[in-house]
Amino acid sequence: MAVELIDSMGNDDSVARSARVSSGTNGDEKQNRGLLNMLMRDRHGSPFESVVFQFRIECPIFVAREFFRHRIASYNEVSGRYKILEPTFYVPDPDRPLMQIGKPGAYRFEAGDDVQKAVTLRAHMRAAEVTWDYYETLLASGVARETARNVLPLSLYTSFFVTMNLRGLLNFLSLRWAHEDSKVPTFPLYEIEQVAKQMDSLARGICPVTFEHFDKHGRVAP
Amino acid sequence: MAVELIDSMGNDDSVARSARVSSGTNGDEKQNRGLLNMLMRDRHGSPFESVVFQFRIECPIFVAREFFRHRIASYNEVSGRYKILEPTFYVPDPDRPLMQIGKPGAYRFEAGDDVQKAVTLRAHMRAAEVTWDYYETLLASGVARETARNVLPLSLYTSFFVTMNLRGLLNFLSLRWAHEDSKVPTFPLYEIEQVAKQMDSLARGICPVTFEHFDKHGRVAP
Amino acid sequence: MAVELIDSMGNDDSVARSARVSSGTNGDEKQNRGLLNMLMRDRHGSPFESVVFQFRIECPIFVAREFFRHRIASYNEVSGRYKILEPTFYVPDPDRPLMQIGKPGAYRFEAGDDVQKAVTLRAHMRAAEVTWDYYETLLASGVARETARNVLPLSLYTSFFVTMNLRGLLNFLSLRWAHEDSKVPTFPLYEIEQVAKQMDSLARGICPVTFEHFDKHGRVAP
Amino acid sequence: MAVELIDSMGNDDSVARSARVSSGTNGDEKQNRGLLNMLMRDRHGSPFESVVFQFRIECPIFVAREFFRHRIASYNEVSGRYKILEPTFYVPDPDRPLMQIGKPGAYRFEAGDDVQKAVTLRAHMRAAEVTWDYYETLLASGVARETARNVLPLSLYTSFFVTMNLRGLLNFLSLRWAHEDSKVPTFPLYEIEQVAKQMDSLARGICPVTFEHFDKHGRVAP
Repeated sequence: MAVELIDSMGNDDSVARSARVSSGTNGDEKQNRGLLNMLMRDRHGSPFESVVFQFRIECPIFVAREFFRHRIASYNEVSGRYKILEPTFYVPDPDRPLMQIGKPGAYRFEAGDDVQKAVTLRAHMRAAEVTWDYYETLLASGVARETARNVLPLSLYTSFFVTMNLRGLLNFLSLRWAHEDSKVPTFPLYEIEQVAKQMDSLARGICPVTFEHFDKHGRVAP
Repeated sequence: MAVELIDSMGNDDSVARSARVSSGTNGDEKQNRGLLNMLMRDRHGSPFESVVFQFRIECPIFVAREFFRHRIASYNEVSGRYKILEPTFYVPDPDRPLMQIGKPGAYRFEAGDDVQKAVTLRAHMRAAEVTWDYYETLLASGVARETARNVLPLSLYTSFFVTMNLRGLLNFLSLRWAHEDSKVPTFPLYEIEQVAKQMDSLARGICPVTFEHFDKHGRVAP
Repeated sequence: MAVELIDSMGNDDSVARSARVSSGTNGDEKQNRGLLNMLMRDRHGSPFESVVFQFRIECPIFVAREFFRHRIASYNEVSGRYKILEPTFYVPDPDRPLMQIGKPGAYRFEAGDDVQKAVTLRAHMRAAEVTWDYYETLLASGVARETARNVLPLSLYTSFFVTMNLRGLLNFLSLRWAHEDSKVPTFPLYEIEQVAKQMDSLARGICPVTFEHFDKHGRVAP
Repeated sequence: MAVELIDSMGNDDSVARSARVSSGTNGDEKQNRGLLNMLMRDRHGSPFESVVFQFRIECPIFVAREFFRHRIASYNEVSGRYKILEPTFYVPDPDRPLMQIGKPGAYRFEAGDDVQKAVTLRAHMRAAEVTWDYYETLLASGVARETARNVLPLSLYTSFFVTMNLRGLLNFLSLRWAHEDSKVPTFPLYEIEQVAKQMDSLARGICPVTFEHFDKHGRVAP
């Protein structure tokens, strides 16, 4: 899972400037801190749309599938119709909890025993190898890329650009990271949480005051 | 590929009624026909947002991936995190062109020879069988559904509800069906075109005048 | 302020049906109640997008200006470019609090004394009369409608259709009605709150279970 | 009408970079020109969402009302609830055509004679003066700002920030400027066209190749 910040527009001051147009006031740095606190606390979201990020994400298709459900964002992705894909596949890392206990909406996860780890590793590796063989055979036979890729698994890596404003990003983070400060419970997929953590870290560097108040007020998107 | 119309709101008259609020006029059936013609021709899109459809779609994941790129729509999909999936896989039908000739943005397709057909069929069937075995083994070992499903291929069927207004639908159709009346060239994936044709047919039954003008004016979304 | 429900699609059952596609389960009426409770509590918003309403609203322009800031909705409005407008103006009703105390984001309101009531009434009525005279003079002189209407005040009534899904409506209501059950403080304009109350009442008749849980969980949009 | 470019992200190269992710190719400057030409011609819109602008606009309320109908954008505006407004009013400039001939959707405009010019000027100035007096009287009487502003006319200037991506901007321009290169007829309000021209000029400086192809292909938004 790789997340790269490609470009951005604006910062904490942009949020304050956009908010201040409504009342026609100005403020110094300390007053801007207070303003951002109030905006986050009382859920005044629109000023946070003045900051925009473009990220490049590399992740398995099953993660991208969840990511693209966030509709207030712009996407450009590798196309299996146009490009000969590369054999990069996801294999769960040792920290990935393998046991899912409970019912939808309230799962708990546990680590999994050695047998489960072994079978998981083996299934991921073998599914990748076998399906990649079929993919290459199809291409070698002159079959269209867009048909050949059908046999590839959801663990295949994909790559995309996403452009998202700060408000949309905070909403993404509120749902995709079960952070210790989260006030509303969320049960994100382990792998998308890895992506969310990196996005949080990169954006936090640009808007530190916004993220401080986001954490403080329970990581609910304004 | 199965498309079912689950519910809808409004029809051609709703479009006319919404459009007429701007000028405060009324019109009979014939005048409404003329009005819809003008709205389509001059690209006045907003009145077409007064009609809404909900469809249930069953299609392979690689089709759903394209479908979900349409952001002005609402989606609810089978979740591989919550549900034990069913072993229904896509296999290209005999009419599916298998050879892709030319370059991105201007591909031509040709049928493919008997060898290509055979290798395509075999690859799809074997990839399905092998990966499904791994999926079942993982589940039997107590591995979480959300991890087990990673090994399944893009040819696996998924199922979702989509709620979309008529304007969004016309945009979808303009891009996803290379119709003989299309004025702007488009190169849709064969399989999503099968979905688009069924959606067109179902919605056309509800808004025949809108679709008549859509065809007449080159299937460009208003 | 007049609010009319023109059309709608779906109800509480549609929400449950869309939510259940993710897990592939079915449920009876009692189980659907529990499901809707969980969706609202844990902020699973997308199933609520399966229900859609179209309203016709008549309200002053200063209210419409706030309303149209809700972007996930479809609008068609009377056009002062195309239509000769009608002389219907807003005059504050006796319950409209006239004094604004405190600072932005935390105003309190008080009723206002008799002098304030009289000056408010007179100003609204005289501004309407004087500007309407100019409007009619301009039209009589052959000046374009779209230029003549510039002189009319924000208290002039307008009329529009809005199509909005249930999730968007709940978000609207969470911001535009300072309801006694509201968990997040909001300071809506008195007049838009009158509109919100009517919309709540009309939609509640169609989705009673959704609204029951909306109230119970603090009227925070899912 | 004042338009200021406050901030931006990206340029023509960002569009090319986002588009190229789909095929995994690279290109030099000349190839990027060809790529942007193809994207515009064949209506591949999403790469143009990688460029974002923030503008500050000052315009009369009747212009802002049209502007805010563009929903894929972010807005922050002066609030008459929070701020004591300033007495800046629009008066039609001498080039503003005053006569509207024909029917909705196909108006022609003509200059207007001297009498029409005089009555238009007088009506705008007098409506501004009279209503401003009432506004000040209401404030002086302690009436809330949000109620006092109701009496002000649509010709009052407002001020707002808008954040919009390049694709949204091109759509705005296709509808709000009846440019000589426009392939689809449009009948924008004279005053919003003045705003559109300034936005076009500012954004064109950042994405010259995009705008060259936009003009060449008939100013239809991709």
